[in-house]
Amino acid sequence: MTENQSQYRFDLLQKRWVIIASERGKRPNDFQVPKEPAESDGFCPFCPGHEDKTPAEILSIPAMPGRTNPSRWQVRVVPNKFPALRVEGQPVREADGIYDRILGVGAHEVVIETPQHHSPMAERDIEETFLLLKVYRERIRDLMNDRRLKYILVFKNHGSSAGATLHHPHSQIMATTVTPRIVSTELTSCREHHQVKERCLICDLIKQETTDRDRIICIDDRYIAFCPYASRFPFEAFIAPRFHQHDYVNASDDDLRLLASTLRDVLWRLKLALDDPPYNFVLHSSPNTRVIPRRAHYWDTIEFDFHWHIELLPRLTRVAGFEWGTGFYINPTPPEEAARFLRQIS
Amino acid sequence: MTENQSQYRFDLLQKRWVIIASERGKRPNDFQVPKEPAESDGFCPFCPGHEDKTPAEILSIPAMPGRTNPSRWQVRVVPNKFPALRVEGQPVREADGIYDRILGVGAHEVVIETPQHHSPMAERDIEETFLLLKVYRERIRDLMNDRRLKYILVFKNHGSSAGATLHHPHSQIMATTVTPRIVSTELTSCREHHQVKERCLICDLIKQETTDRDRIICIDDRYIAFCPYASRFPFEAFIAPRFHQHDYVNASDDDLRLLASTLRDVLWRLKLALDDPPYNFVLHSSPNTRVIPRRAHYWDTIEFDFHWHIELLPRLTRVAGFEWGTGFYINPTPPEEAARFLRQIS
Repeated sequence: MTENQSQYRFDLLQKRWVIIASERGKRPNDFQVPKEPAESDGFCPFCPGHEDKTPAEILSIPAMPGRTNPSRWQVRVVPNKFPALRVEGQPVREADGIYDRILGVGAHEVVIETPQHHSPMAERDIEETFLLLKVYRERIRDLMNDRRLKYILVFKNHGSSAGATLHHPHSQIMATTVTPRIVSTELTSCREHHQVKERCLICDLIKQETTDRDRIICIDDRYIAFCPYASRFPFEAFIAPRFHQHDYVNASDDDLRLLASTLRDVLWRLKLALDDPPYNFVLHSSPNTRVIPRRAHYWDTIEFDFHWHIELLPRLTRVAGFEWGTGFYINPTPPEEAARFLRQIS
Repeated sequence: MTENQSQYRFDLLQKRWVIIASERGKRPNDFQVPKEPAESDGFCPFCPGHEDKTPAEILSIPAMPGRTNPSRWQVRVVPNKFPALRVEGQPVREADGIYDRILGVGAHEVVIETPQHHSPMAERDIEETFLLLKVYRERIRDLMNDRRLKYILVFKNHGSSAGATLHHPHSQIMATTVTPRIVSTELTSCREHHQVKERCLICDLIKQETTDRDRIICIDDRYIAFCPYASRFPFEAFIAPRFHQHDYVNASDDDLRLLASTLRDVLWRLKLALDDPPYNFVLHSSPNTRVIPRRAHYWDTIEFDFHWHIELLPRLTRVAGFEWGTGFYINPTPPEEAARFLRQIS
């Protein structure tokens, strides 16, 4: 392992893997001046006509027939130009004194969601979002064929204070040889619940929410969106299928079309209620079930050990570092109140 | 438990307590416009002469003799005017359907570090910081007498993007009836390590750092400051005693004077290297050892199960929501490089 390759390193105290992405090349001096917005010159590498400004595409979905479209494509997936992880190499695990590290193997892709530069997801039509959700499913399915990859993470940053460096609507996919800490805690919680009760914890949570009703944002026969009981942030939303499904790749086309409708509904309500807030969403799906089970007792009941969902986090409060240092959150808006407010938006 | 009192609520999936602080009164409309800086009118409630603008003081340290001082006090501790937790009441644990909650009992104090409005900790003299560190110790010791309180957390936000709403240098103390998640993970890691090896994990980490040397920022006979092996953020620092000590309240005056010197050294280097960056620091000390042990096997070896330390997190990178949604961090600056850069500052 050479020093200028990215590495996963394990935090022995906080029990989590961190990516030390030295290839991204942030040197100390880079932090001394505030970063300029990447698009200050008005050039967008994701707009139609600039296809040669991104690395060679992994996937391209043709433009939908019968629609005005500035390009021949509707959705494009390309490798991240500044990847935190590289596809090449074997994820060899090494001791480094008392510490542990792994070569930074993985994938880091960008999903250009639409050819339209100014078309936020909250305003896009459902058919377009449906197409995007299918692209997520296809990329996850494809990356799962790589048995080095334990987890495939889909996420989106909207707005610069949510971490988006380019305005053009895009999501990211990161495939890693380790499971992100929050997902792995959720897996443990679900597994422990299932071991005792032989029921899915998230199914139980959803049942409680449909009984209480006061935290529901919107609901249909197949999907529910609610503000979680212990929301860390104001207007946090949890979107999940009401039926048990552990892995997002198992979602059918019909279901993904309904999910697109729920997702757009929630984003539209947030946009109207909070004046287009910055937000992040993260798809928490099952780990890569095609990876050879290392601990048989763990994988035995994998189908009941997780229940995929989307966590949507509006970025409204400024306080942040305290939370990073403690894992403790103070939320000034009760989820019941946030949900009531969002339900009232028509 | 009435609906308009703060509550601790447990996140069943992510296994952590969250404070739903409804008394702080953030209503949906509050989020629609960016907050104005609290001091836009130039008035500072923490400056000398405005002592009546804060709640009645808990502790006041007289001005040091022989020094120019605009007030009769050097450090003041007052209750937070907008507390997330209240001192009154019993922390009754209640089921709420499938969920769990506790009345929001605790303490939330503000430490006004100096009478000088423009005197950041990095520039203050060591004797003043020593006094502040003694105040932390005194407040922790006093709050530990309250057996309802399991954990006392001292933290500081410097700079508005690190969450400081007032410019006047201040820290905060929050005492809770639950242990913050990150601290409780650290406790578990230390306990597991000690069970197997009968050694303190943090002592072992420090030994590794003094062997490797390439992540050390500064070191003396009693204290070490280093960039952790799996730093989540660029220029993150970990400051700890080189000798085993589980609880900060056990630190002697002589030691706290040396700690003040190390802390100031690190802050000064950060200030010079990175142009006065915003930062947070958090003191991770032992839980309240005066609380009656609930699980005897846990508390048996408490003296070896933790090792207090300060985690200092400069706020240089913008990306944040992704980390919140996954617990996964990408750090673009290897800690070896950050430490080398900080060591070179004279």
